[in-house]
Amino acid sequence: MDLYSGYINKLIDELAGLPGIGSKSAQRLAFHIINMPKAKVEKLARTMTEAKEHVRYCEECYTLTDSEKCPICANDRRDHSVIMVVENTRDLAAYEKTGKYEGVYHVLHGAISPMLGIGPNDIKLKELMHRLTGDVKEVIIATNSSLEGETTAMYIGKLIKPTGVKVTRIASGVPVGGDLEYIDEVTLLRALEGRVEM
Amino acid sequence: MDLYSGYINKLIDELAGLPGIGSKSAQRLAFHIINMPKAKVEKLARTMTEAKEHVRYCEECYTLTDSEKCPICANDRRDHSVIMVVENTRDLAAYEKTGKYEGVYHVLHGAISPMLGIGPNDIKLKELMHRLTGDVKEVIIATNSSLEGETTAMYIGKLIKPTGVKVTRIASGVPVGGDLEYIDEVTLLRALEGRVEM
Repeated sequence: MDLYSGYINKLIDELAGLPGIGSKSAQRLAFHIINMPKAKVEKLARTMTEAKEHVRYCEECYTLTDSEKCPICANDRRDHSVIMVVENTRDLAAYEKTGKYEGVYHVLHGAISPMLGIGPNDIKLKELMHRLTGDVKEVIIATNSSLEGETTAMYIGKLIKPTGVKVTRIASGVPVGGDLEYIDEVTLLRALEGRVEM
Repeated sequence: MDLYSGYINKLIDELAGLPGIGSKSAQRLAFHIINMPKAKVEKLARTMTEAKEHVRYCEECYTLTDSEKCPICANDRRDHSVIMVVENTRDLAAYEKTGKYEGVYHVLHGAISPMLGIGPNDIKLKELMHRLTGDVKEVIIATNSSLEGETTAMYIGKLIKPTGVKVTRIASGVPVGGDLEYIDEVTLLRALEGRVEM
Protein backbone atom coordinates (compact mmCIF):
# COMPACT_ATOMS: atom_id res chain seq x y z
CA MET A 1 0.00 0.00 0.00
CA ASP A 2 1.15 3.49 -0.73
CA LEU A 3 1.74 5.38 2.49
CA TYR A 4 0.48 8.68 1.14
CA SER A 5 -2.21 9.76 -1.30
CA GLY A 6 -1.48 9.93 -5.02
CA TYR A 7 -0.89 13.69 -5.14
CA ILE A 8 1.50 13.60 -2.19
CA ASN A 9 3.43 10.65 -3.67
CA LYS A 10 3.70 12.39 -7.04
CA LEU A 11 5.07 15.53 -5.37
CA ILE A 12 7.55 13.51 -3.27
CA ASP A 13 8.77 11.72 -6.41
CA GLU A 14 9.22 15.00 -8.31
CA LEU A 15 11.16 16.58 -5.43
CA ALA A 16 13.31 13.49 -4.89
CA GLY A 17 14.44 13.87 -8.51
CA LEU A 18 16.22 17.14 -7.69
CA PRO A 19 19.95 17.04 -6.89
CA GLY A 20 20.91 16.63 -3.23
CA ILE A 21 17.35 15.83 -2.13
CA GLY A 22 16.93 12.33 -0.73
CA SER A 23 13.64 10.60 -0.04
CA LYS A 24 13.41 11.87 3.57
CA SER A 25 14.00 15.51 2.55
CA ALA A 26 11.57 15.09 -0.32
CA GLN A 27 8.88 13.96 2.16
CA ARG A 28 9.60 16.86 4.48
CA LEU A 29 9.54 19.37 1.60
CA ALA A 30 6.34 17.91 0.16
CA PHE A 31 4.48 18.26 3.45
CA HIS A 32 5.88 21.74 3.91
CA ILE A 33 4.61 22.74 0.46
CA ILE A 34 1.18 21.21 1.10
CA ASN A 35 0.95 23.16 4.35
CA MET A 36 2.01 26.45 2.73
CA PRO A 37 -0.73 28.99 1.88
CA LYS A 38 -2.09 28.40 -1.64
CA ALA A 39 -0.80 31.76 -2.91
CA LYS A 40 2.75 30.92 -1.81
CA VAL A 41 2.72 27.56 -3.55
CA GLU A 42 1.50 29.21 -6.72
CA LYS A 43 4.22 31.84 -6.44
CA LEU A 44 6.91 29.17 -6.01
CA ALA A 45 5.59 27.25 -9.02
CA ARG A 46 5.34 30.40 -11.13
CA THR A 47 8.84 31.55 -10.18
CA MET A 48 10.20 28.24 -11.47
CA THR A 49 8.48 28.33 -14.82
CA GLU A 50 9.25 32.03 -15.28
CA ALA A 51 12.94 31.56 -14.51
CA LYS A 52 13.07 28.68 -17.00
CA GLU A 53 11.31 30.81 -19.60
CA HIS A 54 13.29 34.04 -19.28
CA VAL A 55 16.80 32.98 -18.40
CA ARG A 56 19.20 32.57 -21.31
CA TYR A 57 22.89 32.79 -22.16
CA CYS A 58 24.68 36.14 -22.26
CA GLU A 59 25.64 36.58 -25.92
CA GLU A 60 29.22 37.37 -24.93
CA CYS A 61 30.25 35.30 -21.91
CA TYR A 62 27.47 32.69 -21.94
CA THR A 63 26.60 33.11 -18.29
CA LEU A 64 22.91 32.71 -17.43
CA THR A 65 21.11 36.04 -17.50
CA ASP A 66 17.81 37.55 -18.56
CA SER A 67 19.02 40.20 -20.99
CA GLU A 68 21.08 39.95 -24.21
CA LYS A 69 24.24 40.87 -22.34
CA CYS A 70 24.84 40.09 -18.67
CA PRO A 71 25.45 43.05 -16.31
CA ILE A 72 29.19 42.28 -16.23
CA CYS A 73 29.67 42.21 -20.02
CA ALA A 74 27.48 45.32 -20.34
CA ASN A 75 29.66 47.19 -17.83
CA ASP A 76 32.20 49.47 -19.58
CA ARG A 77 34.25 49.89 -16.41
CA ARG A 78 35.22 46.19 -16.44
CA ASP A 79 38.44 45.27 -18.25
CA HIS A 80 37.20 43.46 -21.35
CA SER A 81 40.75 42.44 -22.33
CA VAL A 82 41.03 39.95 -19.46
CA ILE A 83 38.77 36.90 -19.58
CA MET A 84 38.40 34.45 -16.69
CA VAL A 85 37.20 31.04 -17.85
CA VAL A 86 34.92 29.23 -15.36
CA GLU A 87 32.92 26.02 -15.53
CA ASN A 88 29.55 27.46 -14.55
CA THR A 89 27.61 30.52 -13.41
CA ARG A 90 27.99 29.61 -9.73
CA ASP A 91 31.78 29.66 -10.07
CA LEU A 92 31.49 33.08 -11.71
CA ALA A 93 29.41 34.25 -8.75
CA ALA A 94 32.02 32.90 -6.32
CA TYR A 95 34.77 35.02 -7.90
CA GLU A 96 32.45 37.97 -8.30
CA LYS A 97 31.78 37.90 -4.54
CA THR A 98 35.47 38.58 -3.88
CA GLY A 99 34.81 42.02 -5.39
CA LYS A 100 38.44 42.20 -6.55
CA TYR A 101 38.29 40.87 -10.09
CA GLU A 102 38.01 43.64 -12.70
CA GLY A 103 37.96 41.59 -15.88
CA VAL A 104 35.14 39.72 -17.60
CA TYR A 105 34.26 36.02 -17.66
CA HIS A 106 33.60 33.14 -20.01
CA VAL A 107 31.31 30.37 -18.81
CA LEU A 108 31.99 26.94 -20.32
CA HIS A 109 28.91 25.21 -18.91
CA GLY A 110 30.81 22.06 -18.06
CA ALA A 111 34.25 20.56 -18.22
CA ILE A 112 35.83 18.01 -20.53
CA SER A 113 35.21 14.52 -19.11
CA PRO A 114 36.03 11.43 -21.19
CA MET A 115 34.38 9.39 -18.39
CA LEU A 116 31.04 11.14 -18.87
CA GLY A 117 31.50 11.42 -22.64
CA ILE A 118 31.79 15.23 -22.52
CA GLY A 119 34.18 16.44 -25.20
CA PRO A 120 35.50 19.89 -26.19
CA ASN A 121 32.50 20.41 -28.48
CA ASP A 122 30.03 19.92 -25.62
CA ILE A 123 31.21 23.01 -23.74
CA LYS A 124 31.35 26.67 -24.84
CA LEU A 125 34.92 26.41 -26.12
CA LYS A 126 34.42 27.45 -29.78
CA GLU A 127 32.67 30.51 -28.34
CA LEU A 128 35.73 31.29 -26.20
CA MET A 129 38.10 30.96 -29.15
CA HIS A 130 35.85 33.25 -31.17
CA ARG A 131 36.17 35.95 -28.48
CA LEU A 132 39.98 35.85 -28.75
CA THR A 133 39.76 37.44 -32.20
CA GLY A 134 38.94 40.68 -30.36
CA ASP A 135 41.29 42.75 -28.19
CA VAL A 136 42.14 40.15 -25.51
CA LYS A 137 45.38 40.30 -23.50
CA GLU A 138 44.98 37.47 -21.01
CA VAL A 139 42.85 34.38 -20.44
CA ILE A 140 42.78 33.19 -16.80
CA ILE A 141 41.68 29.59 -16.53
CA ALA A 142 39.67 29.12 -13.33
CA THR A 143 38.18 25.69 -13.92
CA ASN A 144 37.91 23.49 -10.81
CA SER A 145 40.90 21.72 -9.35
CA SER A 146 39.29 18.35 -10.19
CA LEU A 147 40.42 15.82 -12.81
CA GLU A 148 37.90 17.24 -15.30
CA GLY A 149 38.80 20.83 -14.46
CA GLU A 150 42.53 20.18 -14.89
CA THR A 151 41.98 18.31 -18.16
CA THR A 152 39.90 21.21 -19.45
CA ALA A 153 42.52 23.73 -18.31
CA MET A 154 45.32 21.88 -20.10
CA TYR A 155 43.24 21.50 -23.27
CA ILE A 156 42.34 25.20 -23.36
CA GLY A 157 45.95 26.18 -22.59
CA LYS A 158 47.22 24.19 -25.59
CA LEU A 159 44.50 25.66 -27.81
CA ILE A 160 45.19 29.29 -26.89
CA LYS A 161 49.00 29.34 -26.75
CA PRO A 162 49.49 29.38 -30.56
CA THR A 163 47.30 32.51 -30.81
CA GLY A 164 49.84 34.48 -28.77
CA VAL A 165 47.31 35.46 -26.07
CA LYS A 166 48.69 35.08 -22.52
CA VAL A 167 47.11 32.11 -20.69
CA THR A 168 47.30 31.69 -16.92
CA ARG A 169 45.85 29.21 -14.40
CA ILE A 170 44.66 30.16 -10.90
CA ALA A 171 47.00 28.84 -8.17
CA SER A 172 46.46 25.52 -6.40
CA GLY A 173 47.53 25.27 -2.78
CA VAL A 174 46.56 25.16 0.85
CA PRO A 175 43.26 26.98 1.46
CA VAL A 176 43.45 30.00 3.77
CA GLY A 177 42.79 28.83 7.32
CA GLY A 178 43.44 25.24 6.26
CA ASP A 179 45.22 22.95 8.69
CA LEU A 180 48.11 21.16 6.94
CA GLU A 181 47.38 18.01 8.91
CA TYR A 182 44.02 17.56 7.20
CA ILE A 183 45.04 18.45 3.66
CA ASP A 184 45.59 15.76 1.03
CA GLU A 185 49.08 15.08 -0.33
CA VAL A 186 48.37 16.25 -3.85
CA THR A 187 47.35 19.68 -2.54
CA LEU A 188 50.41 19.81 -0.28
CA LEU A 189 52.71 19.01 -3.23
CA ARG A 190 50.93 21.63 -5.36
CA ALA A 191 51.41 24.18 -2.60
CA LEU A 192 55.12 23.31 -2.44
CA GLU A 193 55.58 23.55 -6.21
CA GLY A 194 53.75 26.84 -6.32
CA ARG A 195 55.67 28.43 -3.46
CA VAL A 196 56.47 32.14 -3.81
CA GLU A 197 59.36 34.16 -2.39
CA MET A 198 58.61 36.14 0.77
CA MET B 1 25.38 44.35 -7.37
CA ASP B 2 23.22 41.25 -7.63
CA LEU B 3 25.29 38.28 -8.73
CA TYR B 4 22.56 36.72 -10.83
CA SER B 5 19.76 38.01 -13.01
CA GLY B 6 16.40 38.94 -11.44
CA TYR B 7 14.64 35.70 -12.39
CA ILE B 8 17.46 33.55 -11.02
CA ASN B 9 17.62 35.55 -7.78
CA LYS B 10 13.86 35.29 -7.32
CA LEU B 11 14.00 31.53 -7.78
CA ILE B 12 16.95 31.19 -5.37
CA ASP B 13 15.06 33.25 -2.76
CA GLU B 14 11.92 31.14 -3.12
CA LEU B 15 13.86 27.89 -2.80
CA ALA B 16 15.92 29.14 0.16
CA GLY B 17 12.61 29.71 1.98
CA LEU B 18 11.96 25.95 2.07
CA PRO B 19 12.96 23.99 5.18
CA GLY B 20 16.43 22.45 5.21
CA ILE B 21 17.54 24.33 2.09
CA GLY B 22 20.35 26.79 2.69
CA SER B 23 21.54 29.44 0.27
CA LYS B 24 24.13 27.15 -1.38
CA SER B 25 21.61 24.36 -1.98
CA ALA B 26 19.10 26.92 -3.22
CA GLN B 27 21.63 28.12 -5.81
CA ARG B 28 22.42 24.59 -6.91
CA LEU B 29 18.71 23.73 -7.17
CA ALA B 30 17.89 26.93 -9.04
CA PHE B 31 20.53 26.27 -11.71
CA HIS B 32 19.43 22.65 -11.93
CA ILE B 33 15.83 23.76 -12.53
CA ILE B 34 16.88 26.33 -15.13
CA ASN B 35 18.83 23.64 -16.97
CA MET B 36 15.97 21.14 -16.87
CA PRO B 37 13.85 20.70 -20.04
CA LYS B 38 10.92 23.15 -20.07
CA ALA B 39 8.32 20.35 -19.91
CA LYS B 40 9.92 18.95 -16.74
CA VAL B 41 9.93 22.33 -15.00
CA GLU B 42 6.28 22.78 -15.88
CA LYS B 43 5.48 19.30 -14.54
CA LEU B 44 7.28 20.02 -11.26
CA ALA B 45 5.43 23.33 -10.88
CA ARG B 46 2.09 21.73 -11.76
CA THR B 47 2.61 18.83 -9.34
CA MET B 48 3.11 21.34 -6.53
CA THR B 49 0.00 23.38 -7.19
CA GLU B 50 -2.08 20.23 -7.79
CA ALA B 51 -0.95 18.63 -4.55
CA LYS B 52 -1.79 21.83 -2.68
CA GLU B 53 -5.19 21.96 -4.37
CA HIS B 54 -6.29 18.35 -3.89
CA VAL B 55 -4.77 17.30 -0.62
CA ARG B 56 -6.96 17.78 2.45
CA TYR B 57 -7.56 16.31 5.89
CA CYS B 58 -9.17 12.90 6.31
CA GLU B 59 -12.53 13.63 7.95
CA GLU B 60 -11.83 11.01 10.63
CA CYS B 61 -8.15 10.98 11.52
CA TYR B 62 -7.05 14.30 9.96
CA THR B 63 -4.13 12.84 8.08
CA LEU B 64 -3.40 14.44 4.70
CA THR B 65 -5.17 12.59 1.90
CA ASP B 66 -7.02 13.27 -1.34
CA SER B 67 -10.35 11.62 -0.57
CA GLU B 68 -12.93 12.23 2.20
CA LYS B 69 -11.54 9.35 4.24
CA CYS B 70 -7.92 8.20 4.09
CA PRO B 71 -7.26 4.60 2.95
CA ILE B 72 -6.60 3.54 6.58
CA CYS B 73 -9.85 4.96 8.00
CA ALA B 74 -11.77 3.56 5.01
CA ASN B 75 -10.34 0.07 5.65
CA ASP B 76 -12.81 -2.13 7.54
CA ARG B 77 -10.14 -4.67 8.43
CA ARG B 78 -8.33 -2.14 10.64
CA ASP B 79 -9.27 -2.07 14.31
CA HIS B 80 -11.18 1.20 14.66
CA SER B 81 -11.35 0.85 18.46
CA VAL B 82 -7.61 1.53 18.87
CA ILE B 83 -6.39 5.03 17.96
CA MET B 84 -2.70 5.93 17.78
CA VAL B 85 -2.12 9.67 18.22
CA VAL B 86 0.80 11.08 16.18
CA GLU B 87 2.10 14.59 15.59
CA ASN B 88 2.04 14.51 11.80
CA THR B 89 1.44 12.45 8.66
CA ARG B 90 5.12 11.52 8.38
CA ASP B 91 5.03 9.92 11.85
CA LEU B 92 1.91 8.02 10.78
CA ALA B 93 3.82 6.77 7.73
CA ALA B 94 6.74 5.70 9.93
CA TYR B 95 4.49 3.45 12.03
CA GLU B 96 2.59 2.28 8.99
CA LYS B 97 5.88 1.08 7.45
CA THR B 98 6.36 -1.36 10.34
CA GLY B 99 3.33 -3.19 8.91
CA LYS B 100 2.43 -4.46 12.40
CA TYR B 101 -0.03 -1.86 13.67
CA GLU B 102 -3.64 -2.87 13.08
CA GLY B 103 -5.45 0.10 14.60
CA VAL B 104 -6.21 3.54 13.18
CA TYR B 105 -4.54 6.91 13.75
CA HIS B 106 -5.24 10.46 14.80
CA VAL B 107 -2.97 13.18 13.42
CA LEU B 108 -2.60 16.24 15.68
CA HIS B 109 -0.70 18.40 13.16
CA GLY B 110 1.65 19.73 15.78
CA ALA B 111 2.45 19.47 19.46
CA ILE B 112 1.77 21.77 22.39
CA SER B 113 4.65 24.23 22.73
CA PRO B 114 4.39 27.18 25.11
CA MET B 115 7.72 28.38 23.65
CA LEU B 116 6.26 28.65 20.15
CA GLY B 117 2.87 29.77 21.42
CA ILE B 118 1.16 26.57 20.27
CA GLY B 119 -1.63 25.66 22.68
CA PRO B 120 -4.10 22.75 22.88
CA ASN B 121 -6.51 24.59 20.60
CA ASP B 122 -3.92 24.89 17.82
CA ILE B 123 -3.72 21.13 17.27
CA LYS B 124 -6.44 18.61 16.36
CA LEU B 125 -7.25 17.77 19.98
CA LYS B 126 -10.97 18.67 20.10
CA GLU B 127 -11.29 16.40 17.06
CA LEU B 128 -9.63 13.55 18.97
CA MET B 129 -11.92 14.01 21.98
CA HIS B 130 -14.90 13.99 19.64
CA ARG B 131 -13.84 10.57 18.27
CA LEU B 132 -13.82 9.10 21.78
CA THR B 133 -17.63 9.38 21.92
CA GLY B 134 -17.64 6.37 19.54
CA ASP B 135 -16.58 2.81 20.35
CA VAL B 136 -12.94 3.40 21.34
CA LYS B 137 -11.07 1.02 23.68
CA GLU B 138 -7.56 2.44 23.70
CA VAL B 139 -5.68 5.59 22.75
CA ILE B 140 -1.95 5.05 22.18
CA ILE B 141 -0.02 8.32 22.42
CA ALA B 142 2.89 8.24 19.97
CA THR B 143 3.96 11.88 20.01
CA ASN B 144 7.72 12.46 19.77
CA SER B 145 10.02 11.95 22.70
CA SER B 146 10.83 15.70 22.70
CA LEU B 147 9.83 18.30 25.30
CA GLU B 148 6.82 19.29 23.17
CA GLY B 149 5.89 15.68 22.46
CA GLU B 150 6.02 14.76 26.15
CA THR B 151 4.03 17.84 27.17
CA THR B 152 1.40 16.98 24.59
CA ALA B 153 1.30 13.35 25.74
CA MET B 154 0.79 14.35 29.38
CA TYR B 155 -1.91 16.85 28.46
CA ILE B 156 -3.82 14.33 26.35
CA GLY B 157 -3.43 11.66 29.04
CA LYS B 158 -5.01 13.91 31.66
CA LEU B 159 -7.79 14.87 29.28
CA ILE B 160 -8.73 11.31 28.35
CA LYS B 161 -8.42 9.51 31.72
CA PRO B 162 -11.75 10.85 33.13
CA THR B 163 -13.58 9.41 30.08
CA GLY B 164 -12.61 5.88 31.13
CA VAL B 165 -10.88 5.10 27.82
CA LYS B 166 -7.51 3.34 28.27
CA VAL B 167 -4.57 5.64 27.45
CA THR B 168 -1.07 4.31 26.80
CA ARG B 169 2.24 5.89 25.75
CA ILE B 170 4.77 4.21 23.45
CA ALA B 171 7.92 3.11 25.31
CA SER B 172 11.02 5.27 25.61
CA GLY B 173 14.34 3.47 25.78
CA VAL B 174 17.53 2.45 24.08
CA PRO B 175 17.01 2.19 20.30
CA VAL B 176 17.55 -1.26 18.80
CA GLY B 177 21.20 -1.58 17.80
CA GLY B 178 22.03 1.44 19.96
CA ASP B 179 25.34 1.45 21.80
CA LEU B 180 24.79 2.37 25.47
CA GLU B 181 28.03 4.34 25.48
CA TYR B 182 26.63 6.87 23.03
CA ILE B 183 23.14 7.24 24.46
CA ASP B 184 22.17 10.25 26.57
CA GLU B 185 21.46 9.85 30.28
CA VAL B 186 17.78 10.72 30.07
CA THR B 187 17.21 7.90 27.60
CA LEU B 188 19.25 5.51 29.77
CA LEU B 189 17.14 6.38 32.83
CA ARG B 190 13.95 5.96 30.82
CA ALA B 191 15.14 2.57 29.64
CA LEU B 192 15.84 1.59 33.26
CA GLU B 193 12.45 2.80 34.50
CA GLY B 194 10.68 1.02 31.68
CA ARG B 195 12.47 -2.31 32.19
CA VAL B 196 10.36 -5.43 31.64
CA GLU B 197 10.71 -8.89 33.15
CA MET B 198 12.44 -11.48 30.98
